[in-house]
Amino acid sequence: MVEQFLREQKQLVEAQLPRYIARLNAPGTLKQAMLYSLEAGGKRIRPLLLLATLHAFHKEIEIGLPVACAIEMIHTYSLIHDDLPSMDNDDLRRGKPTNHKVFGEAMAILAGDGLLTYAFQVIAEMPDAQVAPETKLALIAELAKAAGPEGMVAGQVADMEGEGQRLLLEELEYIHRHKTGKMLQYSVLAGALLAGADEAQRAYLDAFASHLGLAFQIRDDILDIEGSEEKIGKKVGSDIENEKVTYPLLLTMEGAKEKLNFHIAEAKRYLQAADVQDDALRYICDLVATRDH
Amino acid sequence: MVEQFLREQKQLVEAQLPRYIARLNAPGTLKQAMLYSLEAGGKRIRPLLLLATLHAFHKEIEIGLPVACAIEMIHTYSLIHDDLPSMDNDDLRRGKPTNHKVFGEAMAILAGDGLLTYAFQVIAEMPDAQVAPETKLALIAELAKAAGPEGMVAGQVADMEGEGQRLLLEELEYIHRHKTGKMLQYSVLAGALLAGADEAQRAYLDAFASHLGLAFQIRDDILDIEGSEEKIGKKVGSDIENEKVTYPLLLTMEGAKEKLNFHIAEAKRYLQAADVQDDALRYICDLVATRDH
Repeated sequence: MVEQFLREQKQLVEAQLPRYIARLNAPGTLKQAMLYSLEAGGKRIRPLLLLATLHAFHKEIEIGLPVACAIEMIHTYSLIHDDLPSMDNDDLRRGKPTNHKVFGEAMAILAGDGLLTYAFQVIAEMPDAQVAPETKLALIAELAKAAGPEGMVAGQVADMEGEGQRLLLEELEYIHRHKTGKMLQYSVLAGALLAGADEAQRAYLDAFASHLGLAFQIRDDILDIEGSEEKIGKKVGSDIENEKVTYPLLLTMEGAKEKLNFHIAEAKRYLQAADVQDDALRYICDLVATRDH
Repeated sequence: MVEQFLREQKQLVEAQLPRYIARLNAPGTLKQAMLYSLEAGGKRIRPLLLLATLHAFHKEIEIGLPVACAIEMIHTYSLIHDDLPSMDNDDLRRGKPTNHKVFGEAMAILAGDGLLTYAFQVIAEMPDAQVAPETKLALIAELAKAAGPEGMVAGQVADMEGEGQRLLLEELEYIHRHKTGKMLQYSVLAGALLAGADEAQRAYLDAFASHLGLAFQIRDDILDIEGSEEKIGKKVGSDIENEKVTYPLLLTMEGAKEKLNFHIAEAKRYLQAADVQDDALRYICDLVATRDH
């Protein structure tokens, strides 16, 4: 039931994303490059978190669709830029050639720039009848904070600067809290803002999303060792090969799994405190804890 | 008098930009990289256009300062990304090493991403007491259009795809209308939105800015042939060396100068029609027509 609800929401987002690109009056190759990575699949966990948060407040899912798509655009831009030769230099992403492998490096940079910029337009142009101007401004300001130099970009810089270093656990957590955590938190916050959650609920949901974000990353590190190449769409063991500091490396595999369970339990505890219809958010939580890709 | 006014406004913007970076809670190197290019100088013509437009409506200049800085952030991000090895591969910009030459390619990409994202935050967080939420949303939506895949990014893509091609005049104009024109037009539009200009005035000012933008680019092409290397801060003749299609190439130097004069005259005609206090905007117009760097 919840599973089907989330599957339908995922389809809704995946049907909407190409429509946003199609309506652009822009060079064809640019639109292709933007669309290529938007359509490269993935779990769509950020949009789903937003839509599941709306569901938690019994709100109409449709009002969240533009922000859900904007979040996925920002996530996609970050993957395109991260994969560039001067960054992680990845040839494959989810088993498909990365954007710059298909469209060239210059176009990949521009496709990323385009997606990042367009995301803000999509939110700013939401119909006033559905979302109050003040709410839209809060959605935009918080998105910029989560994605920008105090958020995701900061995490990417810290990750880069930590390469080849012997990181402490708190430095590793800084990276993850910013690189992946901030946008996951934003996804829940955006849902809460759209739903008109009160301050206490927002605080509980924020704590929920923060723990979920760390759990997500720990599971990622575990999958890089224990996962199936076929399912995760990239080589297993790449973290060790790249001498990346990970949770299993710092805490042993057993310690990493314990920490994963701790954050999942904390996430659920805060979710319960928020006192909302939490079936879908709880399901996503379990998904993060046990996902195999 | 107008000259002094504009000099003061330029100083105001240049004093404000580092403050926006200083307040960021972000990795030090990222802030340095963002600041380095923001402080690399330049004419600040976009912020000045905005502030001169506010002046044209006898509005307080201060209310425009955040948007003026946001515009300069977006302009600066576009220069950082344009200079990258996979794009124009420039080592120098305004006589100084380009961002990636100082901070490396990955950091330059991230500094650009950070500036682009932060620009939207700066506008979204303007004090409500000074600017109505609806106005802020219009400023954000129009900025995304001007800078994004329908605007500046489209121009950059068209420019890239036109390399080594025998472009027609209309193709050259498409590039310039988007690559530089849209953000110049936005600068004037943002001033008009903040000043509460009526629809007719906005239309006249938009036509003014459109002609000014083309004039700006034609002057650029002329300077690449007739300019002084010391003043423009890069090699003269680089367009010919790079086999770039320019106005002098398509129209002869005489034809290019005629076209420059035409667009300046048209700009002034529309400016007059807007029926505003136009001394500062007129001065910028003359500056564009005769600038030597």
